[in-house]
Amino acid sequence: MERLTIVKVGGKVVEEKESLEQLLKSFSSIRGKKILVHGGGRAATALATRLGVETKMVEGRRITDAETLEIAVMVYAGLVNKSIVAGLQAKGCNAIGLTGADLSVIHSVKRPVKDIDYGFVGDVMGVNTSELRLLLNEEVVPVMAPITHDMKGQLLNTNADTIAAELAIAFSDIYTVNLFYCFEKKGVLLDPNDENSVIPELTYKRFKALQTEGIINEGMIPKLDNSFNAMRNGVNQILITNPEQIANARGTRLSLKDDDE
Amino acid sequence: MERLTIVKVGGKVVEEKESLEQLLKSFSSIRGKKILVHGGGRAATALATRLGVETKMVEGRRITDAETLEIAVMVYAGLVNKSIVAGLQAKGCNAIGLTGADLSVIHSVKRPVKDIDYGFVGDVMGVNTSELRLLLNEEVVPVMAPITHDMKGQLLNTNADTIAAELAIAFSDIYTVNLFYCFEKKGVLLDPNDENSVIPELTYKRFKALQTEGIINEGMIPKLDNSFNAMRNGVNQILITNPEQIANARGTRLSLKDDDE
Repeated sequence: MERLTIVKVGGKVVEEKESLEQLLKSFSSIRGKKILVHGGGRAATALATRLGVETKMVEGRRITDAETLEIAVMVYAGLVNKSIVAGLQAKGCNAIGLTGADLSVIHSVKRPVKDIDYGFVGDVMGVNTSELRLLLNEEVVPVMAPITHDMKGQLLNTNADTIAAELAIAFSDIYTVNLFYCFEKKGVLLDPNDENSVIPELTYKRFKALQTEGIINEGMIPKLDNSFNAMRNGVNQILITNPEQIANARGTRLSLKDDDE
Repeated sequence: MERLTIVKVGGKVVEEKESLEQLLKSFSSIRGKKILVHGGGRAATALATRLGVETKMVEGRRITDAETLEIAVMVYAGLVNKSIVAGLQAKGCNAIGLTGADLSVIHSVKRPVKDIDYGFVGDVMGVNTSELRLLLNEEVVPVMAPITHDMKGQLLNTNADTIAAELAIAFSDIYTVNLFYCFEKKGVLLDPNDENSVIPELTYKRFKALQTEGIINEGMIPKLDNSFNAMRNGVNQILITNPEQIANARGTRLSLKDDDE
């Protein structure tokens, strides 16, 4: 099968000029079909603060009231998305910025209220791979903002890691999918203060042991849970890395080899 | 030749819930190939005010410093564009939101400084009709935000009326182009206080006479100058109207019949 590379980039990487430039350079150099998925939470929080809108987080997830949704749409689908698109175009990469609403590529439902009301947050229901393939087949590079829609006119805030994983799973029937989770560290670190303590290969068993020990914590837990789920659903390869290392595919490689034990 | 309908909608229309809903309904019902171009200046001014960023206008054009550009990108390419796209998708219209940077569909240059430094404002240099045709041929409906790029990574603020006119001219070689300028009035009014004083047909000569008399003024002047220029460059039909009247094609129709006199 043909290869599809999906790069998810978040946090500091897209919001700081130097690391964004490094990302654009690395991403442009990837050959073949590719999709970039980005976050932008810090910029959204910064705009919310300037506007006097309180940012509420529960377990690393943003509570999205109507005003916070407007901010998320402006920052993710506007500022961050279009800055990346213009940057990639300048490097000769024929990028197109999309939310899930555009071509209805990602359909979601507003998360049902159980213990917590997350507000205008969308849980992914489906990926329209045929519309995205039309673009990929024309050598167009989709740049996905973490906003989806419910197909009834409502935009919804959706976690970028989840979007990347859902895209990777949906395309696994058609392509050999390699997924890169790109952030500011070289990979999953054994010691958060030592950049050189990257775990080169991480099985699910080891991940859960490190989680129990408190070595892997916070935002990394849902990211890894999502990732192992994606691998079990057909994604070929998942790497946790930083922009510099995309080209040589170094970082923390996830492995299912313990799953059978 | 096949028909292409371009609807430019601005000001109050896209920013108020009821008139936006009317627009989405009217626009969805247009048959055949179509493109929507939108503004959003009032919402940008409102956000700038909340952020304490001063809005400077010269002859109806926004002076765009770095901070104002960020606001324009957030409001036009983010909030306004994606709200329209989600609204159209809910009506079964397969919309895709674009700036000039996406697929590099509109290339501009930063306006040279003469008497006035407009800042990050782009003058349109070219329309990439072939990329847009790929979408139109798949029955996709482009929704254009008034942001372009210089192909070197810089986003630029560009007048939405101008974008609509440039698209209309560029496509006139390929399609029979009908251009609708949609705003909150029924057309060009002889008496600004009388909604029923619509001029049904307006020649260039009459426009210039009404301008001299002060009856046509402010933002309408560049809009009409642009429009007559577009007609002289091959656009089939131009109508100044409101969302309700799109379906029956009523409003002020521009005419070149005096041009030969």
